[in-house]
Amino acid sequence: MVQNKSAVFLKFPKEFPVPGEHMEIQTKELKADLKPNSVLLRNLYFSLDPYMRGRMRDAESYIPHFQINQPMNGYGVAEVIESKNTAFPKGALVSGMTGWEQYSVIPEDFAKHLRVLPKYARTSKKIPLSAWVGVLGMPGFTAYSSLKIIGQPKAGETIFVSAAAGAVGQLVGQMAKKLGLRVVGSAGSDDKVDYLLKELKFDAAFNYKKNGTILENLKRAAPEGIDIYYENVGGETLEAALEVMKNHGRVIACGMISQYNTQKPYGIRNLGHIVSKRITMRGFINDDFAKECYGDFLKDVSEWLEGEEIIYKEDVQEGIEGSLEAFVGMLNGKNFGKQVVKIADL
Amino acid sequence: MVQNKSAVFLKFPKEFPVPGEHMEIQTKELKADLKPNSVLLRNLYFSLDPYMRGRMRDAESYIPHFQINQPMNGYGVAEVIESKNTAFPKGALVSGMTGWEQYSVIPEDFAKHLRVLPKYARTSKKIPLSAWVGVLGMPGFTAYSSLKIIGQPKAGETIFVSAAAGAVGQLVGQMAKKLGLRVVGSAGSDDKVDYLLKELKFDAAFNYKKNGTILENLKRAAPEGIDIYYENVGGETLEAALEVMKNHGRVIACGMISQYNTQKPYGIRNLGHIVSKRITMRGFINDDFAKECYGDFLKDVSEWLEGEEIIYKEDVQEGIEGSLEAFVGMLNGKNFGKQVVKIADL
Repeated sequence: MVQNKSAVFLKFPKEFPVPGEHMEIQTKELKADLKPNSVLLRNLYFSLDPYMRGRMRDAESYIPHFQINQPMNGYGVAEVIESKNTAFPKGALVSGMTGWEQYSVIPEDFAKHLRVLPKYARTSKKIPLSAWVGVLGMPGFTAYSSLKIIGQPKAGETIFVSAAAGAVGQLVGQMAKKLGLRVVGSAGSDDKVDYLLKELKFDAAFNYKKNGTILENLKRAAPEGIDIYYENVGGETLEAALEVMKNHGRVIACGMISQYNTQKPYGIRNLGHIVSKRITMRGFINDDFAKECYGDFLKDVSEWLEGEEIIYKEDVQEGIEGSLEAFVGMLNGKNFGKQVVKIADL
Repeated sequence: MVQNKSAVFLKFPKEFPVPGEHMEIQTKELKADLKPNSVLLRNLYFSLDPYMRGRMRDAESYIPHFQINQPMNGYGVAEVIESKNTAFPKGALVSGMTGWEQYSVIPEDFAKHLRVLPKYARTSKKIPLSAWVGVLGMPGFTAYSSLKIIGQPKAGETIFVSAAAGAVGQLVGQMAKKLGLRVVGSAGSDDKVDYLLKELKFDAAFNYKKNGTILENLKRAAPEGIDIYYENVGGETLEAALEVMKNHGRVIACGMISQYNTQKPYGIRNLGHIVSKRITMRGFINDDFAKECYGDFLKDVSEWLEGEEIIYKEDVQEGIEGSLEAFVGMLNGKNFGKQVVKIADL
């Protein structure tokens, strides 16, 4: 009998989720009686992302909340080990929505959204398999599509990226450099700031926990103001960004992680700038842009990685056992780079 | 000697401006030694608008602040009584940026932005001259252009308009009805609510000062949620609108009058909806859209007025003397309809 370890959702948290109280690892016997067009996956990498906190809320959203006493799900890379679906034959490597667990039965309705990875996923020396849930997966496409479509970046402009060493921010900053923008980033530790400046070649970066208010830091880093704000955190950082934004500025509203785990959200007091500076602020999910630019994204970012034109830092949790703590750590900004869980070797 | 009464700016207010302290009516002798390409105007109607409060702030904006000890300026309808500019001959009726006073010398740089009114402005029985600073002027064009371009309205959708009985809101609501939307409005008195329901044929309307919170009122008026929010007031109303907005909603950020006269702006705590509901919020000034749709606007709205397909309420202050109090009243929502000052008869 094969045992299957899963991360199971127990209870809606009000602030930060706590392993053991709101979620826990459970081991159950794997039952894989496959229905037509379903597949059995052996999960290899599983992605931990801030948006998942939104699925721990008992409210309607663009994606259903996690089900009580059921394994949680999210983006992963996996190997097909049994298949009743000719599009995903046994032995294929796939990415897409899978379980936060060792093995997942994916029914027909979900299987059809899986993607078979290109052949170079198995052979590339420059692109690790984990990249398919990171820079070549949902966070990468999020960064690429929204910067292009909402940001409308133009050479010579200045962009400010919050959570700039995170899964999305890393690629936003490097893409913006390629497009000729001045790039300013914020992060929550000196190590991350060093990484932004030295490895990712940001023009300026600051630790938002030090050296005065976020607004003071931002004014020093972008004395001429900013044209684009890539919003990952919300709260005081958003307020500061609106304060220094130029006329016709754009706010790419990707996430507001500082507001996800609190019952006392920060009140933004300067939205009048949206009127007087003629700012556009737009939220999105990456599916909104799939038709428009998924093909370009895959081609561009694969080439950049193969050519070592961009780099991408990952924070890999080995094994499913510690993955709940890794998830909470990510919500606290403890990860350094894209947070992934390595569930098994290929 | 001709005497010229002017509304003169004295001092930057911190909260509501006070006549006598921050601005006053002064009488001076008219000196009209016209330079080449300038004109002398006899002002007939002058428009009082919320955006003018922004010009009483000692800060950079899209338009310069008022100058201390100088007459204030804004949109007006006037007759050319002396001219050194062949585009604006003596006797022509014009609209555009003029002084908040009886007579104004308009130098070349400003004169070139004046518009000669079409012939029907003098003869129409359905369109009063004051309409050229209202429904056919800046507020009308603001409503028309932004609803079309930012709002992207579709038949069957629901729009919520705040300050719906105001200069911009009246036209937004009636246009939206013409386009097949369900129209919900808020205003600050029962008389205004009656006007919205009975005269403008809104589908629902509420007095935001009564019957519970703004959010409770809005939920009753729009139980299915809203697709578009036409934002004129900011603060608690914006927060309520974001709360009931549907996925892919649009916020047309025209103004936030509730925030203009306070040093304690309201903190908006639910901007996370912009991410999760994929909302677009965009500020603008009407000049942004002039090329794209000024011609359509003039044609459509003139036809609607001539055909009595829309109505438009004005609140006319007779004479320049009481106009400072009328301006403060408008900032407090005491006006009922578009606030204008009648300075002289044609």
